[in-house]
Amino acid sequence: MNASRPSTSSPGPSSAPSPARPRGVFVAALTPLTSTGDPDLEATAAHYRWLLDQGCDGIVCLGTTGEANSFTLDERLALLDHLGASGLAGRLIVGTGCCAIGDTVRLTRKALEIGAPGVLVLPPFYYKGVPDDGLFAAYAETIERVGDARLRLYIYHFPKMTGLDIGLPLIERLIAAYPDTVVGLKNSSGDWDNIRAMIDAFPGFDVFAGSEEFLLPTLRLGGPGCMSATLNVLAPQAVELAANWQSPEAEATQERLSALRRAISAAAAPIPAMKAMLARHTGRSTWRAVRPPLCPLDPAQEERLSHSLAALGFDLPAAA
Amino acid sequence: MNASRPSTSSPGPSSAPSPARPRGVFVAALTPLTSTGDPDLEATAAHYRWLLDQGCDGIVCLGTTGEANSFTLDERLALLDHLGASGLAGRLIVGTGCCAIGDTVRLTRKALEIGAPGVLVLPPFYYKGVPDDGLFAAYAETIERVGDARLRLYIYHFPKMTGLDIGLPLIERLIAAYPDTVVGLKNSSGDWDNIRAMIDAFPGFDVFAGSEEFLLPTLRLGGPGCMSATLNVLAPQAVELAANWQSPEAEATQERLSALRRAISAAAAPIPAMKAMLARHTGRSTWRAVRPPLCPLDPAQEERLSHSLAALGFDLPAAA
Repeated sequence: MNASRPSTSSPGPSSAPSPARPRGVFVAALTPLTSTGDPDLEATAAHYRWLLDQGCDGIVCLGTTGEANSFTLDERLALLDHLGASGLAGRLIVGTGCCAIGDTVRLTRKALEIGAPGVLVLPPFYYKGVPDDGLFAAYAETIERVGDARLRLYIYHFPKMTGLDIGLPLIERLIAAYPDTVVGLKNSSGDWDNIRAMIDAFPGFDVFAGSEEFLLPTLRLGGPGCMSATLNVLAPQAVELAANWQSPEAEATQERLSALRRAISAAAAPIPAMKAMLARHTGRSTWRAVRPPLCPLDPAQEERLSHSLAALGFDLPAAA
Repeated sequence: MNASRPSTSSPGPSSAPSPARPRGVFVAALTPLTSTGDPDLEATAAHYRWLLDQGCDGIVCLGTTGEANSFTLDERLALLDHLGASGLAGRLIVGTGCCAIGDTVRLTRKALEIGAPGVLVLPPFYYKGVPDDGLFAAYAETIERVGDARLRLYIYHFPKMTGLDIGLPLIERLIAAYPDTVVGLKNSSGDWDNIRAMIDAFPGFDVFAGSEEFLLPTLRLGGPGCMSATLNVLAPQAVELAANWQSPEAEATQERLSALRRAISAAAAPIPAMKAMLARHTGRSTWRAVRPPLCPLDPAQEERLSHSLAALGFDLPAAA
């Protein structure tokens, strides 16, 4: 569909990474808070470095898992400035999609200014039942107003949260209108048939699975990898799978990874659950904090989660 | 539940209105845009005056119909400043609910600063499946951070847009915790049984129907009135019904009002449809503009809408 971005014959994460085409294992990262409930800038950068040290290919910053929409625009801009100053920007895909296009434009420009190689953009998610023309117009206005040839935009498809469907015809229109800009999509539908249909329909368009449960099948189909929340605590296992996806052990590695993900998801809501795990691991109790409308785990939930992961022989890598 | 706000025995809109307890017919008002897509401050104030001149009791400003979530925080604050300077604030219930509580707090403080008698507050609407504890915490944090005894907060229940249920136990907790602050709710569920259950459960708590289709039954149950989008073009008919709800003609008046509402809703998406009607009525073509993800009507849709309303003998009141 775009001759300058052909589908490669060896699309696994072992291909040389390029800033223009992120591939592999991306962690949709948590945002730790301070004791006063503000984004903890230093702890966020430290968490990203710890994840990168585990071998993951990059970080999705300020997405659903990062509680982006619970932060004001100014809080998000300040966090991006800090990450830029920390030398981390080159490894970030930045969530920038808001209900108001003006806010999406501000955040997208900031992501470019600090040097992030891509942005992940939710459709405006307040109104439901809007026509494809309206969603197309929202993305088009964002791209035109940002007006920067460096922009690499990933569509963020998360129907459970947005209540909106992003179907193949809309994706096709966006790729046709902005072939050098609309380069991929994060598919958080949880529906493998939907992920596969998108990978099949658009060769050269990078459809990331929104869960590591689909990492192996995505790589086998020529997809770029995954962007997932639970990788905040499961990055080493996913990195191992991505490095050895063509080996005979790949299916068993995928199965073990999926079992750990399911254990976390079954115990409690994933964002507070992973924050509780990181509080125990780092000894920093502020890691437990979330912004409303999310709720922290209560001590009994946290204990149950800890036991169920211990029963699976699970442990987190040492802090950097 | 709160002795200082008892249910009155004559709760219709003919009771003397009080700034502390808005009652009657409230228009969830449209926000006209300029030719460059900005909120048209002068035209918005003029539209509100035109509606108030038709006898409605007040305006819901910056709600769903007002495309609030498609505007940045700064755009909303500037509009509120303008409305305050225009002398309209005393007639406004201001929509202030955002995904980030910090934004909700800023807008709510501004609404109080200009002298609006109430605010209408969506729950943080990005995350779905959140527990009642999280929604309670979001409202509680908003109220505590605003920290102003003048605050009169209406919960905004619009499950189709938010994907969140606000059930009776959550409302009961909020009233119990903040009896002088959490004084009512706008119920846009479209479900009469749900509206009736709320009116019945909480005497003295002002449950407004989110549609004029339920105006008569709401008044008969002792409810305060309605807050509705389609009243941008149907205010006189609703005002007439509210003034004569105890008359023998009330049912027929309700039926005619409901038929007009259904004709508009059936023809096209209501926000662009009403904007098109006002463009024709005022001769200002900029009235047609909406922000993405909404789409303006195409000329054929506009023509069909115009014909179907003409067939019902419908006409708008003259411009002020």
